[in-house]
Amino acid sequence: MNITIQPLIKFTFLALLLLAMSPVVAQKKYVMVIHGGAGTILKANMTPAKELAYREALTQALKTGYEALKAGKSSMDAVEATIHVMEDSPLFNAGKGAVFTHDGKNEMDAAVMDGKTQMAGAVAGVTTIRNPISAARAVMEKSEHVMMVGKGAELFAKEAGLKMVPPSYFYTKDRWDGLQRAIKEDSAKAVLDHGSKKSMLMGVQNKDNKFGTVGAVALDQAGNLAAGTSTGGMTNKKYGRVGDAPIIGAGTYANNETAGISATGWGEFYIRNVVAYDISAMMEYKKMSLQDATAAAIEKVGKMGGDGGLIALDRAGNVAMPFNTAGMYRGTVTENGEIEVLIYK
Amino acid sequence: MNITIQPLIKFTFLALLLLAMSPVVAQKKYVMVIHGGAGTILKANMTPAKELAYREALTQALKTGYEALKAGKSSMDAVEATIHVMEDSPLFNAGKGAVFTHDGKNEMDAAVMDGKTQMAGAVAGVTTIRNPISAARAVMEKSEHVMMVGKGAELFAKEAGLKMVPPSYFYTKDRWDGLQRAIKEDSAKAVLDHGSKKSMLMGVQNKDNKFGTVGAVALDQAGNLAAGTSTGGMTNKKYGRVGDAPIIGAGTYANNETAGISATGWGEFYIRNVVAYDISAMMEYKKMSLQDATAAAIEKVGKMGGDGGLIALDRAGNVAMPFNTAGMYRGTVTENGEIEVLIYK
Repeated sequence: MNITIQPLIKFTFLALLLLAMSPVVAQKKYVMVIHGGAGTILKANMTPAKELAYREALTQALKTGYEALKAGKSSMDAVEATIHVMEDSPLFNAGKGAVFTHDGKNEMDAAVMDGKTQMAGAVAGVTTIRNPISAARAVMEKSEHVMMVGKGAELFAKEAGLKMVPPSYFYTKDRWDGLQRAIKEDSAKAVLDHGSKKSMLMGVQNKDNKFGTVGAVALDQAGNLAAGTSTGGMTNKKYGRVGDAPIIGAGTYANNETAGISATGWGEFYIRNVVAYDISAMMEYKKMSLQDATAAAIEKVGKMGGDGGLIALDRAGNVAMPFNTAGMYRGTVTENGEIEVLIYK
Repeated sequence: MNITIQPLIKFTFLALLLLAMSPVVAQKKYVMVIHGGAGTILKANMTPAKELAYREALTQALKTGYEALKAGKSSMDAVEATIHVMEDSPLFNAGKGAVFTHDGKNEMDAAVMDGKTQMAGAVAGVTTIRNPISAARAVMEKSEHVMMVGKGAELFAKEAGLKMVPPSYFYTKDRWDGLQRAIKEDSAKAVLDHGSKKSMLMGVQNKDNKFGTVGAVALDQAGNLAAGTSTGGMTNKKYGRVGDAPIIGAGTYANNETAGISATGWGEFYIRNVVAYDISAMMEYKKMSLQDATAAAIEKVGKMGGDGGLIALDRAGNVAMPFNTAGMYRGTVTENGEIEVLIYK
């Protein structure tokens, strides 16, 4: 053995000294990360009032989740409470602010997953449940199923004691106007597409106005992760389209051994790439870090022609929020209650 | 370098000689694998006539797929044609033979995925489409979406020119009697469960009579894989329950770089484990063989308390058909047209 010990000790000492001097040494431990949708969110198109409203809503959502976690509640409780704040706000495409379908309805999807047990629940195409995220949780906890759709899911939610509302609860002028614009734009596109095999389909050229989702991932004091996603889907959608949000493995996934993930963006690409579970698989099978795995997942979506973003949190409290759109409404809170809210790149 | 070359040559020669003498040397290249559901399929409970009927139907399905592949059609064409045979047979829980929901309806789900492009399509909760697998394919090819549910999916299928049927088309006496038995058994279970948090839920104690799915994976002359799955869901299901069959990554997945997969069994466990994509991920990230990856996936389902089986085929023509139930209706065909049909362990 010719290895000289002396230089090794010197190097270690120097490295420790550098670490001690560096601000990164106090590695932040995050306990929650949220998103409120990704898309062409440009400062140029934003009014100060609108930006403030988003920042306040995201901050309120994070505070709510943090209080739950601080009080010793489970990560699932925190995720549900946080998403309630965003579902009840007209700003986000979920719950109250859900976009309209082609037929002038609000059809919502949601999913939750528990990182400790890999139990999961999801609903799709529901129109009368005030907080779809709670319906997803009820499916997980009060049934032996994982996914329920349409009227059946609504019947279940009602029997589970959830708050039901008339479809008119979800009316907002902003979203209604958005539908009228989308119908006009899609009709123009349908004419252009005439004769193509895709002509039956509502166009997605103006997809940035069409998508949007909310999501949260939390890490509780017991060290358990939970993830949830809730969405109003796609403006002017037809044919009962379902995106990635309620698909376990695509838009939502959680596993204590790897990470909790919630995605937002062009759902079809997230389904085809099984994005949320793919991140977990890369971490487990390739031993990739949360940062590298999430970046790789977004890169795959981009290469295929899709866009969007995602949030992820691992058991050590590392957080990642990659996206390949102009912006993503997002925020984090640390174990000390430090809140950070971001919108643009 | 002290390595002696002589023994190495000797060893190589001996190994080649042994290989030449062994029947395994002529490694079969499979071009299609199918399943018709997994469960408590015991020879003791089977009449010779019933067994023959299943063997004939599976053989016919494989012949149909093989003829398509031999004629140079795509793996997607072969998968669709093969699944049509099983959907049109009253023997399998898909299409014509779909089981009844609690409300006496037949709600079907299906999905397809193209291994070359990772394009995918799925429908869930459809009641008037004669061949749901074709609706899944139409979603993939004629829309920019991946998944459609309920009435919306039916409207799309109709506009796409698919064969629509009245719901009564799916009536079979066998399945209707099965529903009556399930209602009786589930009521008994509901009484036992009274007060438990799961009492709202239809029991799954007699799940072997409740599940069943058909699926096919094919490899065409161009070397492309395709997978498809079609199901009538779960007897006596309530609340618009959706299983793994139409969930890309759970019950259905295909990727030329890894494998095509179609699953059958207790769907909730397949969703929570993202089974179909997990096999692909283990092959890609851990460099596991098709045999090892599929065995590991079934083991995970079993450890969690679930059961079922799956079929898988890779680009080299290797096939795997693992299951942890008593039996699985299944079969393969090689590039030379050799058909094998199996039922029991």
